[in-house]
Parts: sequence; C-alpha cells; structure tokens
Amino acid sequence: MTATEKALSAIDANLTGSLDRLFELIRIPSVSTDPAYSGDCRKAADWVVGQLRELGFEASARETGGQPMVVGHYGVSGGGAKAGNGVPHVLFYGHYDVQPADPIELWDAPPFEPRLVDTPTGKHIVARGACDDKGQFMTFIEACRGWKDATGELPITVTVLIEGEEESGSKSLGPFLDAHKDELKADFALVCDTGMWDAKTPAINTLLRGLMLEEIIITAASRDLHSGMYGGPARNPIRVLAKIIADLHDQDGVIQVPGFYDGVADLTPEQKQQWDDLGFNADGFLGDVGLSVPAGEKGRSVLEQIWSRPTCDVNGIIGGYTGEGTKTVIPSQASAKISFRLVGDQDPLKIRDAFRAFVKERLPTDCEVEFIGHGASPALYVDLSLPELGKAAAALEAEFERPAAMIGCGGSIPIAGDFKRTLGMDSILIGFGLDDDKVHSPNEKYNLSSFQHGTRAWARVIGALAGK
Amino acid sequence: MTATEKALSAIDANLTGSLDRLFELIRIPSVSTDPAYSGDCRKAADWVVGQLRELGFEASARETGGQPMVVGHYGVSGGGAKAGNGVPHVLFYGHYDVQPADPIELWDAPPFEPRLVDTPTGKHIVARGACDDKGQFMTFIEACRGWKDATGELPITVTVLIEGEEESGSKSLGPFLDAHKDELKADFALVCDTGMWDAKTPAINTLLRGLMLEEIIITAASRDLHSGMYGGPARNPIRVLAKIIADLHDQDGVIQVPGFYDGVADLTPEQKQQWDDLGFNADGFLGDVGLSVPAGEKGRSVLEQIWSRPTCDVNGIIGGYTGEGTKTVIPSQASAKISFRLVGDQDPLKIRDAFRAFVKERLPTDCEVEFIGHGASPALYVDLSLPELGKAAAALEAEFERPAAMIGCGGSIPIAGDFKRTLGMDSILIGFGLDDDKVHSPNEKYNLSSFQHGTRAWARVIGALAGK
Repeated sequence: MTATEKALSAIDANLTGSLDRLFELIRIPSVSTDPAYSGDCRKAADWVVGQLRELGFEASARETGGQPMVVGHYGVSGGGAKAGNGVPHVLFYGHYDVQPADPIELWDAPPFEPRLVDTPTGKHIVARGACDDKGQFMTFIEACRGWKDATGELPITVTVLIEGEEESGSKSLGPFLDAHKDELKADFALVCDTGMWDAKTPAINTLLRGLMLEEIIITAASRDLHSGMYGGPARNPIRVLAKIIADLHDQDGVIQVPGFYDGVADLTPEQKQQWDDLGFNADGFLGDVGLSVPAGEKGRSVLEQIWSRPTCDVNGIIGGYTGEGTKTVIPSQASAKISFRLVGDQDPLKIRDAFRAFVKERLPTDCEVEFIGHGASPALYVDLSLPELGKAAAALEAEFERPAAMIGCGGSIPIAGDFKRTLGMDSILIGFGLDDDKVHSPNEKYNLSSFQHGTRAWARVIGALAGK
Repeated sequence: MTATEKALSAIDANLTGSLDRLFELIRIPSVSTDPAYSGDCRKAADWVVGQLRELGFEASARETGGQPMVVGHYGVSGGGAKAGNGVPHVLFYGHYDVQPADPIELWDAPPFEPRLVDTPTGKHIVARGACDDKGQFMTFIEACRGWKDATGELPITVTVLIEGEEESGSKSLGPFLDAHKDELKADFALVCDTGMWDAKTPAINTLLRGLMLEEIIITAASRDLHSGMYGGPARNPIRVLAKIIADLHDQDGVIQVPGFYDGVADLTPEQKQQWDDLGFNADGFLGDVGLSVPAGEKGRSVLEQIWSRPTCDVNGIIGGYTGEGTKTVIPSQASAKISFRLVGDQDPLKIRDAFRAFVKERLPTDCEVEFIGHGASPALYVDLSLPELGKAAAALEAEFERPAAMIGCGGSIPIAGDFKRTLGMDSILIGFGLDDDKVHSPNEKYNLSSFQHGTRAWARVIGALAGK
C-alpha cells in the first residue's frame, strides 16, 4: 500500500469527522460584506487557525484593514522544503467568508444551519458556504488531515492562505501579499474555488475572467420632492441612472464604453474546437434557471459568453420609495452596483476610468455622481505547460477515472492574478463545485460526493507532487 | 359685530386649543400605504369622529375594504338645508392619512412628535402630516368650532368626508362614493389639500393634474444567479427595466407611449398671459431644491411643466443586492413604481393600457412582467363661473388683504374629479400649504400662519356662503 493509498483509507474512515468539522465552520455566518458580521468573520478565521494548528501548522489570524487573513506554514520554518531538497512547496488558497444569505425568505431552512439532504443526485450539504468556499477549501484541509493521520506528516511543504474578503472585493489582499511576499512565495499555488466539468468529470481551470466592481450614486435635487409639485421640471435621478444603464449596451449586447474591448482576443480555432468537443448542453444550462436564449453578445456561443467574453452587469439598483404601495416622490438619489467581467488583457483600471468618463458624459445638468470602487482584478491565463499541472491532472484522473477537462471559468478568482503579479507564481485551479450548487443564491449546496471525492483527490494531488 | 367677526374672535382666542388638537392628531402615525399602520389609521379616523361629534355633527367611521372613511353631517338630518331653505349645503373633504416618514434618518426630530419651531419665516409646525393633510383639513374643523363657540351653531349645512387612503391611491373612495351618492351629494364641495400662491397670497386651484400609478415587476431567471457563472448569457431584469424606463422619454423630454398626448391641449394665449403675470420665480423654485434647469418637455415654462403638461416619473426602483458592499449577482427580479401626471382630457385607463403595451413590446425573450395598478384619476378643470367661487375668493381676499390667485396645481386631488363624475358636484379647492412645506419629505412643516389664517379664512368662507 502506497502512502497515498494509506491517506485515502484514513480519509474514508474519517468522513463523519470531516463533515462535523465542515458543519462547525458553516455555522459561523462569516458574511464579509456586511459590517454586522465582522465578529463572525473573526470567529471563522480563528476556527481555521485551530484546524491548522491541530495538523501541525504554525498558524495565525493576521490583522488587516478588513477581515483577518489566516496564514499557516507546514515544513517551512524547519527550512527543509525551502532549502531545496526536492520536496515541492505549495501555497494553498481558499476563503472563509461567504455571501450574504438574502433573500432569506427563499431558503427552505436557516442558511447557517447546515443539513444533509437526500436527493435524486445523492446527498447534498445545504447551507450558505456549503460550496463557496467553505466546503471547497475544507477538502484540502481534510486531505492534509488524512495524510497526517495515515503517515504522521505531510509529504510536501505547505503554506496555507485563507482570506476573509473574497466575497467583498478582497481589498486587504493586495497590500497583504505585497507586505508578505517572502513569507508567502512558494513553488506554485493550489486554489480551490472552482468547479468540475460535470458531476463525474474533474476539471482544471486555465482561463479566469477578471472583475471590476463600481457603485454609482446619482444625486439630483437636494431633497426628495413631491412628484405633483415638482413633476415635470425636476430632474429624476432614477431616470438618469436608467438611461446610463440602457446606454451601456447596444442592441446586439456589445458594451459601449470606449476602449472596453482593448485586449480582448477572439478564440483560436483550436480553442473553439476543444470547447465544442466538450458537448456543453447550453439549453440545459439556461433551462435549469428558467431561461432559453443566451442574452449576451450576438453570435457568440454560451461557453464563449461565459469563458472568453467580457460582460457588464447591474447587480443591484435602488432609488426612491420601494416599500409597499406607492409614494409619489421624485427622489434625490438613485444608485446602482455595476460589475464588469474581464477577459484576456483588459486593464481593469483603464476600464474603470473609461466607465466613469462614460457616466459623466451622460450626466445632465443639476446631477452629481459619486463613484465607489469595490475592487478590480484582471483576467488570467494559466500556463498549460506547467509540469505540476500534468501531475495534478493525472491525480484527478486517478480519482475520478476520467481525464480532467481543461476549461475556462466565468467567475473571477482574483487571487490567481495576484499570485502571478505579486508573487510570480502560477496557480493550479482545482475545485469540485457543480453548476447547480446555487452559489450566491438561496439553498446553496455542495454534493456530498464533491466533498468526499474532492478530499480524496487532493490527497492524491499531494501524493503525486511528493512522488508518493 | 357680525356673526363672522364673532367667529373670528373666538378662533383667535382659542389658538392654543386648536394647536393642541392638531398635535394630538399628528401624533397618530396614520400611514395608509403600509399595513403595519392600519391600527393607527383606525385610531385617527375615530379621533376625527370624536371631534365632529363635539361640534354637533352626526358622525361615524365607516368600514371600507381599506382604511375607514369618516363621514359627518351637520344640519342634514333635520332636513333644514336639504329642504331647500336657501342655506347652502357644502361637502367638505380632507384626508387623515399621511405619507410614510422614510427616510427617517433625514428628520431632525421624530416625525410623529409635532413641534413648534422658530424660524426666520415665523413659527413652523414640523411633523409628518403637519401640512398634508392634517394641518390643512383641521383649519376647516377649527373654523367650524369657532362658529360653534361664537354663535352656538354653524350657519350652513355641512357634510364632512375625511378619507384615509389619499396617500395610497384612494382605492375605497370610488366604491364608497358610488354606494353613498344620495347621502354625500351637496350643492358643491370644499376641498382643503392645496396651496397658497405664496406666503401672503391666497389661491384657488382651478386646474388639477390627474394621476395614474403603475408598479411593474420584471422577472427573468427563476432564481438569483452568480454573475460570474451566468454573466453574459443570463438575461438581467435590471437592464431590461432600465431600458424600458430610458425609452419612456425622448431626448426632448417628450413621453413616447403611443397616444399619451391624446386630450392634451396647449394653453390659450389668455391663460399663458395670466400665468406670465403671476411673476413666478422659476429660478427660485428650482434653486430651493438644488436645481437650476427645468428638466421637463423642451420649450415649456416651469409653470406649464407643472400645471398644464403631463409627466411620467419613476418614484421608486429596486432590484438585486442593495446592501452595503457588493454581491456579484444577476437578480431574478427588478421592479419600479411609475406614475403619470395627467392633464386635460387624458384618459387614465387608456394610458394604463398603452403603457402596459409599451412595456410588453419591449420585453425580451425569457422575461415576464407583472403589472400592479395603484389607482388612476383624470385631470380636472373647475368651472370659473361658479357663483360660490366668487364668494370664496372674496372671503380669502378679506382675510389676506390680497386678491386670490386663480392657479393650477401639479399634484393630483382625485377627489375633485370623483365629486364631479360621481356626485355631479363642482369643487372649490382652497388650501394654505406653501412650496417649502416639504410635503412627502423629511421635516414636513406647516407655517403657524397658514394654520391660523387658514382657520380664519374658512370661517369667513362659511360666513360668506351663509350671507352672514
């Protein structure tokens, strides 16, 4: 029996304990975007530190301007790995923070009370964070536990970085990486915040969209006005905002901010062929959420619209009276949260500037606009020739008995870009989420099989990297 | 000393008591649009009934499908007035319900705790409802009290109708008028829900805009979606709603709903001249609320835009994540509250149908729309040759020592239209509100002088109508 096989046995024998620990973490409502949950974010960070220490990591929750950052080292301070004895040193990344649970009334049960639910597709873990990212990153931690239980040690050198602001723009992350370059630098990174191709096919993401988040607040009159007394001459900021939003796309779904498509390349025929071969069920993908027609840029496939094309979406809008019934008011203010998914070499800060200019150009007399930037990260390509990528792909194939698909991902994982830019490291993005996990939505879930095979897969990846 | 003069003396002697009663009423937070305040609406209705009974009215709060309707009769059951003995019979109308107080944080003090505040323009009564409409309708009730105190009786026959749904679409009013035509019919109506021309010049409104209120709810996907996983192909209902709102006006502020301007006449040269002679300070009107340029239809004066031109405004919009920070979501739903101010012979129900068709035409695949109608009333012209209008104008001139201005009003007072259509009665619209009363806004106020002179003015109108 190889050391890897022993670790797998230990993991299988210990599934109940693994789940108990995950449930403990999920019960902490670590919503990072809402200051009301700051205490819970700290609690979650401390909980992760406790786990790492149990496994022999030197770990602590570090202060930032926002939520604490968990850092743990295994085999680093002894100098073994870093001394270059051939044992690889990986930096593992995940995040302990979660999205808000609202709209709370659409959950079948309280969002922070995890449950195992029997379904036609097996048991599901249902809770906010069940998948994103508590369930996901705990697969790696539990894989480490499996190795520790089975062999008394981890066969590779590991630094763990678990942040607490991924769902709210990761504002502290850049400064933290800058300030701890030497401490965090490893041979390469492992990131667990992505999905499988389908419930049976593992995947590695080699293409990630970036994200630029802007909030705009438009103010017209100095106070709310009676729409009878002022309706007509009074500027209505909701109408101004609506017009700006309407102007952002043309009728073919092409984004109208000048220079927006600079750095966006079309797919090569090879990429296009590869993606066509995946046999993606676009009708099913849209049909699952009640849609039938891709609403993005005209003439692009759904996979292209998600993986290789940039977007502009409005994530939230509010202005005026929004309670029950009516109020005949012309509000003083209206605001929207707008986000851009970026691809290729699009420059988030250039696009931010262009967007702000676009808004200002359309601002009529008597209106003011305030912009609040909520984070910006470019898209990322992963180098397909990285040798460790091959080892990881082989480990995944061994666990799932299918080749790993090399795919793109519509969501942004800014950390991979930050690792590249700040630490000069490539990232291998492996995750076990599924399309129907309802990430960021009510009744978020993680298949028990994702958790179980995910943990086993990481144990195999660790073994493969160590040559054991 | 005439009877009217005695009534005026009694009113002057009793100002403190009048204010105490008004404050008592204001302390009841009778917000009709929000079901949470239903009990308070009932309480306010009962309070008004109590006042009327004290003055010798036969009064009661009548059940409706919504908030109770207060009806009181003085001199009616005895058969005197109705028997046609030459004493006029008036129907007085006001409303005891108020707008919601939000945004509550912009009030300098709790909105339902009325205060007298010293200001450079004299004492102000500050509270939600101080003006609209509690302060306003109480001027008439207190004028009746003055007559009662001074002479032991009212010199005319009076029916009082105080409704509780004026701020939420007056849904019960039409059916109630229909069901009580005979009981409520009088020679003409007096309505107190309008303003003075300025703090020194009384006014009678002869031109009122109508109002049609629509709520639209657009649904795209069957659940909220992650904007990374679905951004691109997923239809965004906020964008759909924004585009519809943007399409409602062209660049000159002209409303694009087909047939919308049917029944809208241009001003006659005489009307235009009259209004120009009022010397309206458009710059000051806009400047007071932080605006400088009239934003309505191009080429129309501010007075025209408010009094004689129809509008379409968005009173509220909401969709997606609107809390602190960000949430990268594509929401399933977005909704807006849209209102139309109507003039001339515009037909509210035809416009409702045309608006709904306009929205449906612009609805892309995979979107559904739900419409909620919140009330619809046409605009109203008051007959300038009505003899009682002349008597009321003379009474106002006596109190304020200036001729009453015959003006328009941008706000809708649907009741005047209902009285015309259902009861065949003309309405004389007299009120004492001022442009800076912050009606429907935080820190709503009513000048003490409005309350005091308003009460005296009604006592004079009552006297003039009775020939005393």
